[in-house]
Amino acid sequence: MITTIDTVLLRIADNELQVLLWQRPSDSRAYPGFWALPGGWVFEDRDETLEQATCRILERKAGLKPDYIEQVATIGNRQRDPDGWSMTVLHLALLRFSCSSSTHEDTHWVPVENVLNQSQELAFDHAVLLAKALERLNTKARYSTLPLYLAEQELKLPELQRIYEIVLGNPLHKRAFRERILSADVLQDTGRRVQGRGSPATIYRYHSDCPVRLFDRMMQGASTETVDE
Amino acid sequence: MITTIDTVLLRIADNELQVLLWQRPSDSRAYPGFWALPGGWVFEDRDETLEQATCRILERKAGLKPDYIEQVATIGNRQRDPDGWSMTVLHLALLRFSCSSSTHEDTHWVPVENVLNQSQELAFDHAVLLAKALERLNTKARYSTLPLYLAEQELKLPELQRIYEIVLGNPLHKRAFRERILSADVLQDTGRRVQGRGSPATIYRYHSDCPVRLFDRMMQGASTETVDE
Repeated sequence: MITTIDTVLLRIADNELQVLLWQRPSDSRAYPGFWALPGGWVFEDRDETLEQATCRILERKAGLKPDYIEQVATIGNRQRDPDGWSMTVLHLALLRFSCSSSTHEDTHWVPVENVLNQSQELAFDHAVLLAKALERLNTKARYSTLPLYLAEQELKLPELQRIYEIVLGNPLHKRAFRERILSADVLQDTGRRVQGRGSPATIYRYHSDCPVRLFDRMMQGASTETVDE
Repeated sequence: MITTIDTVLLRIADNELQVLLWQRPSDSRAYPGFWALPGGWVFEDRDETLEQATCRILERKAGLKPDYIEQVATIGNRQRDPDGWSMTVLHLALLRFSCSSSTHEDTHWVPVENVLNQSQELAFDHAVLLAKALERLNTKARYSTLPLYLAEQELKLPELQRIYEIVLGNPLHKRAFRERILSADVLQDTGRRVQGRGSPATIYRYHSDCPVRLFDRMMQGASTETVDE
């Protein structure tokens, strides 16, 4: 059985979610020259665990080490690969922009929207895999601090709110957003302030090894039709 | 590579969570005679998809068709099976008590507590798999209607609250619990009432194909040190 690992690597740049794609070589056994999620086979002789295989493949295909990786689902059937029954363990990984530059020439970042609206075609069922990973991120953004992994380690609350709004696809109420994020107790006040248009903005810091925390109230409860800024 | 599917099948009986175990035959290739989660191999020639394989295996090993099944995680490494690299796709399945009788003689329901406190030993890493599935259920119970799948289709709110309390491991505040469950809009009032010790209790109904809904407020916010009944 073909057993692979595929990873949806996401970052935010230019005010949108972007996914890292990898171009399959022109002599690939299937979908030659197509863009695909960075992925690869699990090797019994080389990999001790699935987790190690995931990191090895990301390192080799993308040259990146994301702070956050989670399994989304395992998809297996007879149709998804022209060479027969295949199974892939799908992962979601988040990167902050400053750590997202891949030195590999056969990779590039594209807006997820381009895949969703089919202007960017992908190999195999990778467009479906991307949609599954985005759904996981969207759901978790409603009740947890997960989108923090898309932010820089030093940040202002309006920047983080914008990240949540991009992930959730709708504007949030400023006060309700702040209440949820601050009560989750993952941000440290650096004591520094920067002057913006209005009152000075606090600079917060989070640690990349901080666990994902659940909110007491759902973030969609913070939605508003008009942004309150 | 050994590729299997294992399922943690749960029900509530005798005021506790119970898991269905299956006894491995005395001539098994590994762990002969041990109790294990119902599971089996994925067969390329027989199974069209992972989902079909999951149902086929549950039907054959346990004779049961749960209303709710979800994937929890895929665990793969060199250590978990004495015969070498193996990978299992772990599932969580929930059954209401009235549909949980297995006719298979090599299965029995045991309190999950017996596995957790190691008075019931399991084959392979199945005790770890059970713990992972329980963690998933516990987390989802905090923000969703998932535990409804452990309830009978006609139910009173105090019965459902008891199910949540068993899953979460702590008492809940009656009014806060009712508010969350009723606002999730998954229960239909049957119009019937039964007389209890206090005021008459409404009988609600839910449909087994109802999607799992998220609460606006976390259920742990409903916790209380003393049960308010």
